[in-house]
Amino acid sequence: MMPIITLMTDFGTVDGYVGAMKGVLLSLCPQAQLVDITHAIPPQNVYQAAFSLFNAAVLFPPGTVHLVVVDPGVGTDRRPLAIQSNERFYVGPDNGVFSLVSKPADMAVVLENPTFHRVESLTSSTFHGRDIFAPAAAHLASGVSLSQLGSRVTNRVSLSFPKCVFKPPNQWIGQVLYLDAFGNAITNIGILEWKDQTLRLVPFLIDDEPQLVAAPATIKWRGRQFRLGRTYADVRPGQPLALISSNGLLEIAVRDGSAADLLGIKADDKVTLIPKK
Amino acid sequence: MMPIITLMTDFGTVDGYVGAMKGVLLSLCPQAQLVDITHAIPPQNVYQAAFSLFNAAVLFPPGTVHLVVVDPGVGTDRRPLAIQSNERFYVGPDNGVFSLVSKPADMAVVLENPTFHRVESLTSSTFHGRDIFAPAAAHLASGVSLSQLGSRVTNRVSLSFPKCVFKPPNQWIGQVLYLDAFGNAITNIGILEWKDQTLRLVPFLIDDEPQLVAAPATIKWRGRQFRLGRTYADVRPGQPLALISSNGLLEIAVRDGSAADLLGIKADDKVTLIPKK
Amino acid sequence: MMPIITLMTDFGTVDGYVGAMKGVLLSLCPQAQLVDITHAIPPQNVYQAAFSLFNAAVLFPPGTVHLVVVDPGVGTDRRPLAIQSNERFYVGPDNGVFSLVSKPADMAVVLENPTFHRVESLTSSTFHGRDIFAPAAAHLASGVSLSQLGSRVTNRVSLSFPKCVFKPPNQWIGQVLYLDAFGNAITNIGILEWKDQTLRLVPFLIDDEPQLVAAPATIKWRGRQFRLGRTYADVRPGQPLALISSNGLLEIAVRDGSAADLLGIKADDKVTLIPKK
Repeated sequence: MMPIITLMTDFGTVDGYVGAMKGVLLSLCPQAQLVDITHAIPPQNVYQAAFSLFNAAVLFPPGTVHLVVVDPGVGTDRRPLAIQSNERFYVGPDNGVFSLVSKPADMAVVLENPTFHRVESLTSSTFHGRDIFAPAAAHLASGVSLSQLGSRVTNRVSLSFPKCVFKPPNQWIGQVLYLDAFGNAITNIGILEWKDQTLRLVPFLIDDEPQLVAAPATIKWRGRQFRLGRTYADVRPGQPLALISSNGLLEIAVRDGSAADLLGIKADDKVTLIPKK
Repeated sequence: MMPIITLMTDFGTVDGYVGAMKGVLLSLCPQAQLVDITHAIPPQNVYQAAFSLFNAAVLFPPGTVHLVVVDPGVGTDRRPLAIQSNERFYVGPDNGVFSLVSKPADMAVVLENPTFHRVESLTSSTFHGRDIFAPAAAHLASGVSLSQLGSRVTNRVSLSFPKCVFKPPNQWIGQVLYLDAFGNAITNIGILEWKDQTLRLVPFLIDDEPQLVAAPATIKWRGRQFRLGRTYADVRPGQPLALISSNGLLEIAVRDGSAADLLGIKADDKVTLIPKK
Repeated sequence: MMPIITLMTDFGTVDGYVGAMKGVLLSLCPQAQLVDITHAIPPQNVYQAAFSLFNAAVLFPPGTVHLVVVDPGVGTDRRPLAIQSNERFYVGPDNGVFSLVSKPADMAVVLENPTFHRVESLTSSTFHGRDIFAPAAAHLASGVSLSQLGSRVTNRVSLSFPKCVFKPPNQWIGQVLYLDAFGNAITNIGILEWKDQTLRLVPFLIDDEPQLVAAPATIKWRGRQFRLGRTYADVRPGQPLALISSNGLLEIAVRDGSAADLLGIKADDKVTLIPKK
């Protein structure tokens, strides 16, 4: 079986920097299958990278190595990490980018063993993607163990995401986390799932409280009210609705259109879910 | 031999949705080689996707599975399909996106067998790419037969493309189908081929009338007349010409420039070919 | 071991033209691993392609085939080439795009043997990427030798890059070669390397004079003076500095920002390095 290494960066592809990383990966682990997740993360947007990884990472087979280089702190003393979580490996900077796919208790090491860095006459202190992260990913894919790469760290950086909160008697108050490329507004209300006619709601962040059970619900945003649909087809083209996004979070969308453009909904906007009794 | 699965979507890559599909594909068919065709189809532009697929699909080896998720109708009752045509497989929505690479008589099934859907506690009615199409593609690549995925359909949706028409005594009247990323205007006049000094013309749509034979020809657009060149080098840089596009269709182009920008040529513009006697 | 073929084009992906090349590659060499470097080279920008290749190509394993189709001269009599340099293969047009990764003395052939072109009823004189270059790359990856593809050429086209010049008593005067996607200004002053507290400077172009040794240095641009840092962290976020780019060339950058946007630095701007005694 070919080991799988995925790549996510904010480099774009035009400069050949992603190509440089791929070259290092295949030089050290020629049997790897390289899989691009994206190189279009907005520059240094660690939050976007965390969400994109959340949408994709756990769907890969156990053993997959996810290499993420969105790294505003390159060249500072932020630590380079490798993490093992839920049978997958994650390699990248210690800036919280793995907050949605790993837990603080997961095994993690700092990539401090120079044996597994790129050894070249011209080393760079500005391109850890090529010189530290890609080599670590390739070595993990080749069977090197996490503990060989460096010593254990336990106090990793965590991104802080706003939590959706319950306001008695019956409201869940959250906010828009981000807008995806289709203009859908993804909120921090969820994980949601339809179960017969009942809506189950598990607060978003990992290791949180147990799930709640809600009846069908009404969604409010800026004085407007949306039905909670099950599919886009519940409304006519061009009409807005709320529904459960593919990652389980509540989203506000417009059928065959962009909620960002057509409603003007923005990141951080407040959204309220009111279960129907 | 590694089975090949290609991917074409209008998702962009930034949100990780393409990554989610790739994860599902490799979880179900770890030996597959994944090949990106494009994720930059303009949102919900089924016509563009049909053309892009036309340019690329049949060049892949027999057995290749082409996964196409450009799907304005996700969540409606449009059917999810798998098609076998010309020794390749196609998986995607029944919206006509396969009109240029398959014929109505090709074997096609609706992906209704839940055994081959993604089985997870959190299923989504908004992301069939991940939950229905990618699993079907992976299973086909793994050797599952078309008929196991669902029951046969014969009345598939077809895109309607304008046909170029013959106007006696000697004109072929067509129109611009689309503008490619270089600004070349691709028409529905063709398939064309030089054969010695003679131009052979096969009307564009599949299973159409037999080919005609024309002498060298003159091309007209908005009162302007272009020579039908054989290569861009037939004119000086910055000058317009007509020639046979790489997919066999007549195109109007500007050497080292964009016909869209420099001539103002647009989709749906009328173009006439007049063979020289 | 799977042979590796990388792809670099200015096609974008949307039209399926890159897909067409991938189909040809896998039809002729099904065991190849295809690796995208980039398809976002600005149209016909041979210089950008040369730099991107310089950043990535030699990091791939020996035997890798690098296929580059940035080809303003398609359809003219510019020659299609395959080159062997430093244990890697390069396939593309003879327009200088390989100037930074190969030397004039490297073995190179013109792809004139029609046995190794794509043989189809519909051949195109506008898409050598699909019909000539991709087949050559696939055959090289399959073990065909360079000399089977065509006869040797020795007078290849070379891009002319401005050289940085030494002005006595103690200045190196160079200029900005290009701005990368992060807005960093990469100059032709280099290759630089820190060695203990000393800066070693090897003029940029291949096979040039032996390296010089300089003390720490000051960098000047438009009357401004920058410290030569070792990492971005040597200045505060938003502040400019000079440092050694990941490819060894001197760059002017802004920490966590774009030097292009924030300083207004442009391609061809003069940059001076003055070693401290």
